[in-house]
Amino acid sequence: MNSFYFDWAATSPMSNESIEEYALTARDFMANPSAAHHEGQKSHVRLQELRKKASELLGCKSENMFFTSGGTESDSIILNSALLSINPGNIIISQAEHSAIKQYATVLKQMGWSISYLPCPHGKADIDSLKKLLVPETRFIFIMLVNNVLGTIEDISAIVGKCREYEKNTGRHIHVHTDAVQACGKIPINLEAMDVDSAAFSAHKFCGPRGVGMLYCRNKSIKSISTGGGQESGIRPGTENLSGIAAMVKALEIAVASQKEHFENAMKNKKVLSQLLETNGFEILSPLEGCSPFILNVSTSRIPSEVFVRVMSDRGYCLSAGSACNNNSKKKVEGLNTLGFSEKQSSTSVRISFGFDTDRESSIRLGQNMISVLKELSL
Amino acid sequence: MNSFYFDWAATSPMSNESIEEYALTARDFMANPSAAHHEGQKSHVRLQELRKKASELLGCKSENMFFTSGGTESDSIILNSALLSINPGNIIISQAEHSAIKQYATVLKQMGWSISYLPCPHGKADIDSLKKLLVPETRFIFIMLVNNVLGTIEDISAIVGKCREYEKNTGRHIHVHTDAVQACGKIPINLEAMDVDSAAFSAHKFCGPRGVGMLYCRNKSIKSISTGGGQESGIRPGTENLSGIAAMVKALEIAVASQKEHFENAMKNKKVLSQLLETNGFEILSPLEGCSPFILNVSTSRIPSEVFVRVMSDRGYCLSAGSACNNNSKKKVEGLNTLGFSEKQSSTSVRISFGFDTDRESSIRLGQNMISVLKELSL
Repeated sequence: MNSFYFDWAATSPMSNESIEEYALTARDFMANPSAAHHEGQKSHVRLQELRKKASELLGCKSENMFFTSGGTESDSIILNSALLSINPGNIIISQAEHSAIKQYATVLKQMGWSISYLPCPHGKADIDSLKKLLVPETRFIFIMLVNNVLGTIEDISAIVGKCREYEKNTGRHIHVHTDAVQACGKIPINLEAMDVDSAAFSAHKFCGPRGVGMLYCRNKSIKSISTGGGQESGIRPGTENLSGIAAMVKALEIAVASQKEHFENAMKNKKVLSQLLETNGFEILSPLEGCSPFILNVSTSRIPSEVFVRVMSDRGYCLSAGSACNNNSKKKVEGLNTLGFSEKQSSTSVRISFGFDTDRESSIRLGQNMISVLKELSL
Repeated sequence: MNSFYFDWAATSPMSNESIEEYALTARDFMANPSAAHHEGQKSHVRLQELRKKASELLGCKSENMFFTSGGTESDSIILNSALLSINPGNIIISQAEHSAIKQYATVLKQMGWSISYLPCPHGKADIDSLKKLLVPETRFIFIMLVNNVLGTIEDISAIVGKCREYEKNTGRHIHVHTDAVQACGKIPINLEAMDVDSAAFSAHKFCGPRGVGMLYCRNKSIKSISTGGGQESGIRPGTENLSGIAAMVKALEIAVASQKEHFENAMKNKKVLSQLLETNGFEILSPLEGCSPFILNVSTSRIPSEVFVRVMSDRGYCLSAGSACNNNSKKKVEGLNTLGFSEKQSSTSVRISFGFDTDRESSIRLGQNMISVLKELSL
C-alpha cells in the first residue's frame, strides 16, 4: 500500500518496531505509574526513563516534557491556560495555524482576550507585520514550525528574537508556542536552542501510535483547567498511557536517528516530482528551499481539489485537499487563500506528502498518474 | 504476576486479545478517518462500526457515543462545557467523586458557579440531602456509578428520579453525569434505561488499552472548548486513535460477554477474603450487598495505609491505599473520611481490587499474608 500512500502529513503508519514496543510495554509494565507498590514503581521508573529519552532527542530538560494524548491536546493545554487567566491581554495567532489553534479565537475573545492575526504570505510569517502587531498587552504568540498544508519551515528564531527584543521595553515575558507536529522527526529540533516557551508534538506523524503526543513547556505559570489525579505534574491528568508513550519514544528514536537520511530521500522525491508536475501543467505552491521536503503542494489551476483527490483515490492513490482535519468542518479555516494565495490556487490545490521510505519510482508513478488525471479531467 | 496483583481498580493488564486487535488495526486501518481518499474512508467506516458496537454494548444510540483519551477527559468535556457557560448556576457534586471531578470546584467557582456537595455516607448518596440541595439554579449533578475506593454501587435511578421530579416544577433540565469508570464491564450497564445525560468510561479498567475512553452524551447543548479539526462531532478534537478504540471495543465485548461469570467469580473471592480478614483483626469497610464485588476496602485500625501497602509490596503484593490517582496530590481529596468514616478508619484503610480472572487460591493466600503482616506490624 505504501507506494500509493502520499498522505503522510495526515497520518503515518505505525512502524513494526513501534507496534512491538507497544505490546511489550503493555505486557511488562502494566501497572499504574501512580501506584505505590513495586509494580507501580516499576512503571513509574519506566515513564521517567522515557521522558528523559524524549527530552534528549528534542533538546530540552526532562522536567519540561509532558506526555499528552496528541498535538491538539498539547496545543489546548496552553490555550486553556490563557483562557482561564484573570488578566486577559492580547494573543497573536499566525494565519498559518492549524484549526486546533485557530478555533480557539471565538472563546478567547469571549473571555476578554484580543486576537491579532500574523500574516504569513506563502506560509512564512511576515516579520515586519509582527513588529507592528506586538503591543504591551501581548502575552502569547502561536506560530507553527512546519506548516501542515504547504510544508514551509518557519524562521522561529527570527520570531522569538523579535519578541525577546520587544520584551526589553515592557519587562513582560511573551510566551511563544509552536505547533511542531509536522516538524518532529522530520527536521532537526533543539527546543532550548529555539528558545520557544512551549511546543506541541504528535506521535502518529512520525510512525508512532495515534492518541499520544508531547507538550514541551518551560513556562511554570501554565496551569491546566483541572489537575485531576495530578499526573504529569498536574499539567495533563489521567492515567498515563505508558504503552503508547513507549511506542512513541521508540518511533521518535528511529526518526531522529535516520532524520538526515529520510530528509535527503524526501528531498529527492520532492524534486523529481516537482519537476515532472511543473513541466506538465501543475503549478508548484510549496517551495524547495525553506520548506519540509515531506510536503509538496501543487495546484491544477482548474480542477477543484476534492474532485482531483477523489479521482486519484479511484486510481488507488491517497492525496489530500488541504489538511485531513479540515475535512470535518464546513467552513474551511486552513485554506491557502489565508496564506496569500489566490482563491483559484487555493481551491485547486492538492497536498502530496511523503513518508520516510517513499521511493523515487513510486513518486514518479504518482506524478505520471496525476498528469494523466489532469488531462482526463481537462477534456 | 496476576496472582499477586490486587490493584485492578487502578489499572488492569491489557488482554492478549486487545493487544492483538490493537496491532491488527494499526496495520490494516492506518489512514486518518478524516481523509477523503479510499484508505481514509475505510478507517472512517471502521470507526463508525466500532462506535455502533460500543453503543450496543452499553445500551445507547451510537450518535451519542464519543471516543476520548480516557475517563478524566470524558469527565472534563462535561465540566469544561459548564465552565464556559455564560449563565452559571449551581452544580451538585457528590462527596464520593474522583479527583478528576472534585478538582474542578475551584475553577467552577471562579467562573461564577455555586457548588453544593452531596453527602455520601458510607459511599452512597443521601437522597434526603439531595432533595434539600436541589435549587432552581441547579444545572448539573455529578455522581459516580461505582465508587473507586469502596466499590459501592450508586442507586442512579433514585438520583435521576429525584431530579426529573424536581424538573417538573422548574421546567429546566438537570444534566446528570455519571463517572462509570469502575462500573463498565463489571456490572450491567444500560445507559438509556439509566436515564443519565452523560457518562464517562475508561478502557484500561476493563483490560483494554490505557489512553482511551468513551463519553456517552445525549445532551446536544454540551460544547467543547475547542472543536479543533471537528473530529467526534466536535466534542473531542484530534486524530482518532483508531487502534486504541478497536482494542478498547474488543476488551469491552469480552468484558460484557463474560460479565455475569466475572461478577460471580469476584463475589466468591470477596466473600472468602472478607470473612478471613474479618475474623483476623480487620474491619470490613466495603459492604457485600449493593457493592461491586471487584473492590474490597478494609481497615487495620492501627497501621497507616501507606505503611501496610508498602510492607505488602515487599511481599510481592499490589494493593492500594485509596485510589492511585490520589497518590500524586499532597492534599488527599478522596479520603474515606469524606464518606462518613472516621479519621482512623480512613487513614488505616487498604483497597483490595480483584480482576476478571483472580482465583480463590490467590485470594486466600493474599488474606493469609495480610493477616501475618498485620501481626508483624502490631508487635
